[in-house]
Amino acid sequence: MPVNLQAPDSAQLHPVAGVRIGVAEAGIRKAGRKDLTVFALDAGSQVAGVFTQNRFCAAPVQVCREHLEQSGQGGIRALVINTGNANAGTGEEGLARARATCAALARLLHIAPEQALPFSTGVIMEPLPVERITAGLPNAVADALADAAPAHWLRAAEGIMTTDTVPKAASRQITLGGKAVHITGICKGAGMIRPNMATMLGFVATDAAIAPALMQPLTRQLAEASFNRISVDGDTSTNDSFIVIATGKAGSAPIAAPDSPEGRLLAEAMTDVARQLAQAIVRDGEGATKFITLRVEGGRDGAECRKVAYAIAHSPLVKTAFFASDPNLGRILAAVGYAGIADLDQTRIELYLDDVHVATRGGRHPAYREEDGQRVMKQAEITVRVHLGRGSASDTVWTCDLSHEYVSINADYRS
Amino acid sequence: MPVNLQAPDSAQLHPVAGVRIGVAEAGIRKAGRKDLTVFALDAGSQVAGVFTQNRFCAAPVQVCREHLEQSGQGGIRALVINTGNANAGTGEEGLARARATCAALARLLHIAPEQALPFSTGVIMEPLPVERITAGLPNAVADALADAAPAHWLRAAEGIMTTDTVPKAASRQITLGGKAVHITGICKGAGMIRPNMATMLGFVATDAAIAPALMQPLTRQLAEASFNRISVDGDTSTNDSFIVIATGKAGSAPIAAPDSPEGRLLAEAMTDVARQLAQAIVRDGEGATKFITLRVEGGRDGAECRKVAYAIAHSPLVKTAFFASDPNLGRILAAVGYAGIADLDQTRIELYLDDVHVATRGGRHPAYREEDGQRVMKQAEITVRVHLGRGSASDTVWTCDLSHEYVSINADYRS
Repeated sequence: MPVNLQAPDSAQLHPVAGVRIGVAEAGIRKAGRKDLTVFALDAGSQVAGVFTQNRFCAAPVQVCREHLEQSGQGGIRALVINTGNANAGTGEEGLARARATCAALARLLHIAPEQALPFSTGVIMEPLPVERITAGLPNAVADALADAAPAHWLRAAEGIMTTDTVPKAASRQITLGGKAVHITGICKGAGMIRPNMATMLGFVATDAAIAPALMQPLTRQLAEASFNRISVDGDTSTNDSFIVIATGKAGSAPIAAPDSPEGRLLAEAMTDVARQLAQAIVRDGEGATKFITLRVEGGRDGAECRKVAYAIAHSPLVKTAFFASDPNLGRILAAVGYAGIADLDQTRIELYLDDVHVATRGGRHPAYREEDGQRVMKQAEITVRVHLGRGSASDTVWTCDLSHEYVSINADYRS
Repeated sequence: MPVNLQAPDSAQLHPVAGVRIGVAEAGIRKAGRKDLTVFALDAGSQVAGVFTQNRFCAAPVQVCREHLEQSGQGGIRALVINTGNANAGTGEEGLARARATCAALARLLHIAPEQALPFSTGVIMEPLPVERITAGLPNAVADALADAAPAHWLRAAEGIMTTDTVPKAASRQITLGGKAVHITGICKGAGMIRPNMATMLGFVATDAAIAPALMQPLTRQLAEASFNRISVDGDTSTNDSFIVIATGKAGSAPIAAPDSPEGRLLAEAMTDVARQLAQAIVRDGEGATKFITLRVEGGRDGAECRKVAYAIAHSPLVKTAFFASDPNLGRILAAVGYAGIADLDQTRIELYLDDVHVATRGGRHPAYREEDGQRVMKQAEITVRVHLGRGSASDTVWTCDLSHEYVSINADYRS
């Protein structure tokens, strides 16, 4: 049961001029399910990406990096995404199969293989069924080139799901220099979520024009404000990829300076979309029943605030207490204590649960009453605020609880 | 259901001359349960300890450090241990209550308050009911001074339990210079287990004589070989304390050099006891159904081997796969990949499950068959061996799986 998250309404997902999307059933792992998605991008699109820092990165991640290097960010013309198999832990053969997938798509679209980027998600360490993918590609490409293809964002969001229970998409329209500009994105992911650069799979496209030099820093900035601030279970995936596409087809003037009014407006709207997508992953986290915002303030720098936030986010004891709606809040203090800040002074720590002041100077607040903690813990959305009393930096991380359902899902995933 | 762990047989726990133990019901959290334990040590005993590195360390841990500093390791004459309340996250008032507990015990034993060490375990951030403890102390002291007190080790192991399902004790007898020497220890802990210096509570005593200068290095060495190599849920407790006592009452010559034959013999026997206790905590880990040995070889140094081992040990996805007996072994490779070794080369990684060679050069081994992995995964005890192909260092960590029962226990702990 996702937390306050519903399937997006297809009518509210703005098409992005220059992006065509097609979906097909390739029978990669299970029959009768749309498991293959193709993006065809008009010439002139800019594409940038950030990828997992997992040293066991999957074959498609390695091929994405190669192809971006070879084609340049102005040379990418297609994406191909399969679910059911992550093509990770597959050695040299996995690389060959990811490249074969790109080559098959390139033949259909009359582009070079290195102009295609491959993405895979699913089970790790099983051979990618590349024949099924190549057999399914003509249908996916035909679907992408059909008239209605600009409206296929919702189908793509469905096509990339694995243990997700809800497709994830977000969209905004803004006006830049008098032109309507659209930003639409999709993502997937529910478990193995502790992105380190990007999430499992996230794609955000805009028809705004963005100067090539801005693409990579913007992509990183978006990832930092969204996917790099969430955790479901602390497991950093082998396949995390976050791709930003700017087609320039809206006719707006190119954004050349990130701090121009238009640059800020676009970055804000794109951040909104990316953050909504990232939060959707947490809301649909495997077994999640609560959506938790962890706000750490009063740190010396952002890095130590994040250390504390992730220690709380990854504590099984804290997560099960949220599941139980049990204000066993000493568990949060314990996690703050082992977060790895060597000179932390516990007598300066303040802890709040929404508006309730739980702990002061490292001990229970004299006015704290169990029933106040209980009231907040029963909510579906909770903000935990920790003040470290060491400086003025702060940061925020979003996470969920740990429930029986998480164990069930992951004890049964392959069977 | 603990994994291959039974309650110790009291007859096999050797008394340690110079150590007397008493237990009483103080009604600290629940009525009708032995929740207060006292150790009375003969004059001349050496006592050393290592404590949690959690910056939110509990009041009793702070008082232990103070009293060891004030009395010296030859001056400690008593320990007092309560369950039901951790006296952590309790601020200045918590320190005052821990000191009051020591003062009450000191009056009964005619020693100075700083000759007593306090230990608490249980719920965090609730006030320690010090009146109930002081009211229960006379019974505990009377029990310790009774004739049969040397045989009270099993009762102490029971007296310090919280969510443990089995009392934990281990014992050895060796001969040093013709004298029979005894080593007996107890510990407790089942959740919030990822010791960083020591476990929740562990006590090992010997009647051998050990030179004062050797006590602290020996204690650290024992902790490193045992409690600092286990993890149940990755949550480092606020109260971890590991205490080593040498009474010298066996009449053996003092151990003055760690590398003498006698020194090595004693250290080996004490390591055996400490490791058996630490492993008992994992076997009785909250909800545990499997006992997992994680052996990481081929690292550049021990620290990076431990990084990899703990990344595997703390991965909820790996732990749930063990619970399901599902050889979803790509999850182990993913954890190796995000363990934080920046220049790890995935094409050098080898993975074994007991005798089964699962992955080679970062991909599935050509001879690996799912049914072989399945066979090992169904066992109650499993060894995972990862070879990093970077050097000759190795290390071992012990952990358990993550089951529905873990969630149930921790969602219900306080209610």
